[in-house]
Amino acid sequence: MSPTRCRIAILGFGTVGSAVARRLTGADAPRDLELTHIFDRRAPQKRECFSATGFDAHRITWTTAIDDVLTSDADIVVETVGGGDVALDWIRAALLAGKSVVTANKQVVARHGAALLALAERQGRQLRFEASVGGAMPIVRAVGDGLAGDRITRIVAILNGTTNAVLSRMEATGCPLDEAIADARDRGYAEADPSTDLDGGDASAKLSILCALAFGLRVDPDAIPTRSASSITTEDFDRARLSGGTLRQLAHAEYDRASATLTAWVAPAVVPRSSIFFRTTGPQNAAVITGAYSGDVTIAGAGAGGDATAVAVVGDLVAIARDRAAIVPAPVLTSDFELRPSSFSDVRLQTSDFELAEAV
Amino acid sequence: MSPTRCRIAILGFGTVGSAVARRLTGADAPRDLELTHIFDRRAPQKRECFSATGFDAHRITWTTAIDDVLTSDADIVVETVGGGDVALDWIRAALLAGKSVVTANKQVVARHGAALLALAERQGRQLRFEASVGGAMPIVRAVGDGLAGDRITRIVAILNGTTNAVLSRMEATGCPLDEAIADARDRGYAEADPSTDLDGGDASAKLSILCALAFGLRVDPDAIPTRSASSITTEDFDRARLSGGTLRQLAHAEYDRASATLTAWVAPAVVPRSSIFFRTTGPQNAAVITGAYSGDVTIAGAGAGGDATAVAVVGDLVAIARDRAAIVPAPVLTSDFELRPSSFSDVRLQTSDFELAEAV
Repeated sequence: MSPTRCRIAILGFGTVGSAVARRLTGADAPRDLELTHIFDRRAPQKRECFSATGFDAHRITWTTAIDDVLTSDADIVVETVGGGDVALDWIRAALLAGKSVVTANKQVVARHGAALLALAERQGRQLRFEASVGGAMPIVRAVGDGLAGDRITRIVAILNGTTNAVLSRMEATGCPLDEAIADARDRGYAEADPSTDLDGGDASAKLSILCALAFGLRVDPDAIPTRSASSITTEDFDRARLSGGTLRQLAHAEYDRASATLTAWVAPAVVPRSSIFFRTTGPQNAAVITGAYSGDVTIAGAGAGGDATAVAVVGDLVAIARDRAAIVPAPVLTSDFELRPSSFSDVRLQTSDFELAEAV
Repeated sequence: MSPTRCRIAILGFGTVGSAVARRLTGADAPRDLELTHIFDRRAPQKRECFSATGFDAHRITWTTAIDDVLTSDADIVVETVGGGDVALDWIRAALLAGKSVVTANKQVVARHGAALLALAERQGRQLRFEASVGGAMPIVRAVGDGLAGDRITRIVAILNGTTNAVLSRMEATGCPLDEAIADARDRGYAEADPSTDLDGGDASAKLSILCALAFGLRVDPDAIPTRSASSITTEDFDRARLSGGTLRQLAHAEYDRASATLTAWVAPAVVPRSSIFFRTTGPQNAAVITGAYSGDVTIAGAGAGGDATAVAVVGDLVAIARDRAAIVPAPVLTSDFELRPSSFSDVRLQTSDFELAEAV
């Protein structure tokens, strides 16, 4: 317990929170990180379950009171509670209490990320959110840092692992949507109610985060036009197959800086056989990021699951522990752009150009 | 010329250096970066050419004397001289003069990266090298930061754009190697003498850098077994095609931490049709990074060319400008591992498992 170790508190002990706890207490735990606090409304029961799996949790403070974390000596708070207002309040409170925050919460980052990043900067602390988009696929760093030297013009991506698992199951087996949903539930890829996934609400929050990072735009996720995948039939797949492709839920954002026009949508789309999206199956995510100078950069990886998401969280913890005094300037976002309405009639046309994009 | 702007000096005004200069003085120049110095042995002639292309270079100091840069008020030195000893001396001198350094020099980073990073840390400055591997494909950040929360077990990649352009040309047209090399030269993908590319010397330096980032190993690039692609014939392609694949130069590194055994090689290998490497054509690069917790993460993008490499350099400049006081701890590398000799007879077997790896 050297004084230089970073002390970590986890809020919410569900799939992601417990996976992070396993990583921080397991064989591959990063040396400089120490799990000290776990907050959960059902902390006593969860403590029992966690201890029963053989992990040494006796040096960890388990609590049902958020103030125990906020007034503790934890350096970083990991927020994996999910949801909206309560998580937002706790992230804000943690930053105000002088802690850095790592969150997997796409809804909070999409709606309040800029304000929270400004608060973090004022407090001299960090807010990191790699896990909020793309699971283990490090797209937040790729767009925000790796391609910061380019002018990004377009992002097209599969950002919802649940919907992708459902659609690729329909494609592989010819089963109807409800059977594919049941299968995804059995495999742990889908919640009891996957409507936010299928309707595009999850992907549009993630797309809004990417628009902020890539284009510097403040995009209300609710303003992004979406078309649900919940009424896709086996006949739709037959038609897609006849035209040489298959169906995927795509998130698309293209920004023309000269005219300050953003074209953004989330919808099921026909993707051609030669496209990376065709080959993205199960709960995988994939993205093609186009830069004015670098052309297409492709990135793909596990988009869902506790272990994959925990990789993103632990990566953020390692980054903060490396340089706790780092200054991360809050982004300056603009709302001064026009979001072009989409009729979805041109979706097919737009996605087909990946056939060209791939044949470099 | 606000005092908060980062002042940039470029060493070496070739393909990459001039592309960086165009980015820093062009329409998409990042706001906080100002090009102030250009060093080149033929600075007067190059100044004339550069000015003739319409860029405003009159506020830039052009010099043939390295001391003019070292004693200047430049904050960051961009090293695009290439080569070995001289570049190493200048990087070291720049760090000692209190400047941060961004380099595209894979040979220097592979052989002296750890020592230079330690020097940078002692000086309270940064050394960044995204451009040394993978061109615009942000693999240094993906491996060093994005997947820092995982335990990486394997990296398989196409890391040399020149060789890939040559081999994919042979595949597409059925032409012999020397014709494909001539074509790559015409397109600007190959130097007059591409032997370091074809022989694997370029890729093994890049693989050595990735082994340091991913596994924490100090790997002498000269110790990595390589097999040259320079004797590949059209008959080799015919045989590969019959077995359902094609030929690519792959760089492969797999580390078994329990036995401290590294298997690493660079060689032409048969890649199956379903693999991302099959679809990587022209001067593109691609990598599949396998983590114990996240599974496979794939990344691909332009691996060569001035503009693509400049994206990586400018991204590093933006990162340094964001937080000039950032502490970047030097990695602690170990030499305590066994590098398994490779007979290359098992190369086919090893690469074929990407068929499985991709079918997630």
